[in-house]
Amino acid sequence: MRKPRIVIVGAGYGGMITTVRLQKLLSVNEADITLVNNNSYHYQSTWLHENAAGTLHHDKTRLNIREVIDTSKVNFVQDTVVDIRSKEKRVVLGNGELEYDYLVIGLGFESETFGIKGLKEHAFSISNINSARQLRDHMEYMFSRYATEKRDELLTVVVGGAGFTGIEYLGELVNRMPELVKEYDLPREKVRIVCVEAAPTALPGFDPALIEYAVSHLEKKGVEFRIGTAIKEATPEGLIVAKDDKMEEIKAATVVWAAGVRGNALVEQSGFEAMRGRIKVDEFMRAPGHDDVFLVGDAALVFGPEGRPYPPTAQIAIQEGYTIAKNLTVLVRGKGELEPFAFDNKGTVCSLGHDDAVGIVFGKLLFGWKASFMKKVIDNRYLFLLGGPLLVLKKGKLNFF
Amino acid sequence: MRKPRIVIVGAGYGGMITTVRLQKLLSVNEADITLVNNNSYHYQSTWLHENAAGTLHHDKTRLNIREVIDTSKVNFVQDTVVDIRSKEKRVVLGNGELEYDYLVIGLGFESETFGIKGLKEHAFSISNINSARQLRDHMEYMFSRYATEKRDELLTVVVGGAGFTGIEYLGELVNRMPELVKEYDLPREKVRIVCVEAAPTALPGFDPALIEYAVSHLEKKGVEFRIGTAIKEATPEGLIVAKDDKMEEIKAATVVWAAGVRGNALVEQSGFEAMRGRIKVDEFMRAPGHDDVFLVGDAALVFGPEGRPYPPTAQIAIQEGYTIAKNLTVLVRGKGELEPFAFDNKGTVCSLGHDDAVGIVFGKLLFGWKASFMKKVIDNRYLFLLGGPLLVLKKGKLNFF
Repeated sequence: MRKPRIVIVGAGYGGMITTVRLQKLLSVNEADITLVNNNSYHYQSTWLHENAAGTLHHDKTRLNIREVIDTSKVNFVQDTVVDIRSKEKRVVLGNGELEYDYLVIGLGFESETFGIKGLKEHAFSISNINSARQLRDHMEYMFSRYATEKRDELLTVVVGGAGFTGIEYLGELVNRMPELVKEYDLPREKVRIVCVEAAPTALPGFDPALIEYAVSHLEKKGVEFRIGTAIKEATPEGLIVAKDDKMEEIKAATVVWAAGVRGNALVEQSGFEAMRGRIKVDEFMRAPGHDDVFLVGDAALVFGPEGRPYPPTAQIAIQEGYTIAKNLTVLVRGKGELEPFAFDNKGTVCSLGHDDAVGIVFGKLLFGWKASFMKKVIDNRYLFLLGGPLLVLKKGKLNFF
Repeated sequence: MRKPRIVIVGAGYGGMITTVRLQKLLSVNEADITLVNNNSYHYQSTWLHENAAGTLHHDKTRLNIREVIDTSKVNFVQDTVVDIRSKEKRVVLGNGELEYDYLVIGLGFESETFGIKGLKEHAFSISNINSARQLRDHMEYMFSRYATEKRDELLTVVVGGAGFTGIEYLGELVNRMPELVKEYDLPREKVRIVCVEAAPTALPGFDPALIEYAVSHLEKKGVEFRIGTAIKEATPEGLIVAKDDKMEEIKAATVVWAAGVRGNALVEQSGFEAMRGRIKVDEFMRAPGHDDVFLVGDAALVFGPEGRPYPPTAQIAIQEGYTIAKNLTVLVRGKGELEPFAFDNKGTVCSLGHDDAVGIVFGKLLFGWKASFMKKVIDNRYLFLLGGPLLVLKKGKLNFF
């Protein structure tokens, strides 16, 4: 009898956890497991803002997939997913095809510009290792030009979006600024960091006391906030913004778009019913009408008991991976009961640079070093789940103070 | 009786050596000495190619002037020289004026593009700390874009000129390439480094055996040489070159112009008779018809016994500084005889990265580590002359092997 073939596409938080849980739960005789990813490495997308600001090297953020998974139990294929043909139970890759009995889709997120003119062409996003590194080098190059060109806009960085990514990026940026001022012999007073947010507050949905702490911390370090201000257009010169129908141009050589993400467009293109690349899953994390297709991470739209979708985070993706691995084990063995997914929200921490943060953990508000400490504990716990204590030692955040 | 006022404009090799020699030879009661420079720092222009390639940080190349000179004996003014009014014995600065009894002009070199179309706009030069740092960051930024844009020309660097600067820059560049390939996840085979030289040979005027060694060393490390090939035009896309009237476009995101230097244009603008910013000096290093104006370094055109001008090098600038300081001492004291300048050519070494070089020292050809060793001895000797053993320890090249 042929062994069931499990194919996992995408090695983000969800895909990786699904894979390492499966290789623990199933023996090599029970299933053929294949993990597909476009890069040879997995990266922690929640650390990318640090790579983009240049406070953490991207090699700290990524892990060689072959060193994390057990290659005697899991086949790793480095290739790009081109199409998913669910009727044929087949995944088309750039250089081949894979047939599956069970598929796990974890293709991650993409930047979403909501059709705002010029953003795709003129703004940088913090979406993956390549784009984060490019943003870092772009900003540094603009700074390097100041000494010869003396144009003030070379020293202006505008961040669109005061959500998690925007705020965490700003926290790293202000921390790095003294180093950049020295490296490029810049006049500190000429450096401008502006954050534009269309919503009436920064960090929408967060506790007001935490928002107040975060905003005043960043303002003290020089960030100018433009709250309730919408981006109308990005141009080669910077941004056109509007508040209460009053238009303004902010000249800036570096524009970062950190206000929108969506699931991978391939999910819709493959014929699944999806909203911005995300599929509303059944209670077992499967695509409706496809009992052999699981969704994890940004590909999965999961509704909470209040009827609202949970925001896609690393935390929920990791928990989904656990559930999916368990359910796949039940299906492969043909015994036991499928387990419904239930999100256990342990809390959220938003970092403000490596030594400061705000958050709510186990229902308790945290500020400053306590929140920062907790953030690092969370990051290290993920590495522990993924690869045990050795991986924590190698890639963990051990600079606690 | 008023003390004679000596003003030295420009803190390059020649200006710095003149200053430190003067502060040693003259007592504070004998003269007022003022050094003017546009930056607060002196830099070793012969190391700039390393800063530009990114193999040496520019802070290693520059020295805080106030830490090298004796500020109890020399006034340091950080300002830009706007005009030299030799009839009024006056130097006009950006923020003031200085009167002098004796003037030493050491304003250094500028890049010279010989009117080749587009070079000023599209090519980088290795002229000072700012331009070297900008070139480094530009190349890195182009490399960072490759992962997202996949355009081959982003990974092409073209160097115009196979003279000293071009060859030494290439030597550093090939040495750094493995690091850059790793940093930016580049396919090594896509990286192209091309050197275009109009003359029929690289390193024109150098010993053929040394040229052969240098070229084959760089070719082995992947440099493509286009000898006897002229640059016709620089465009936003790269270079148009021609060999025997056959035109070719070399697409490149990074174009470096390393084939021409001239003296500072201010020298001509101030009414001195000059050729490309260089004044043919009398035997005592003075401007003809101006017994109170000395020229040092790139500002001075010095003819050898065969009737040909010496190329402007750090070595000759340093020796000129010694002669000028001695002659100023004679003039200030009103006794003794002026000393004619005689260049004592100790040799020339062209580095090929930090561990290889070619050169001729005391008439002997040197290759490989011996030449490289000698280059570092020369560099350290200059620092010793400037600031003694402590400066050698602080800024010297002590990585001998």
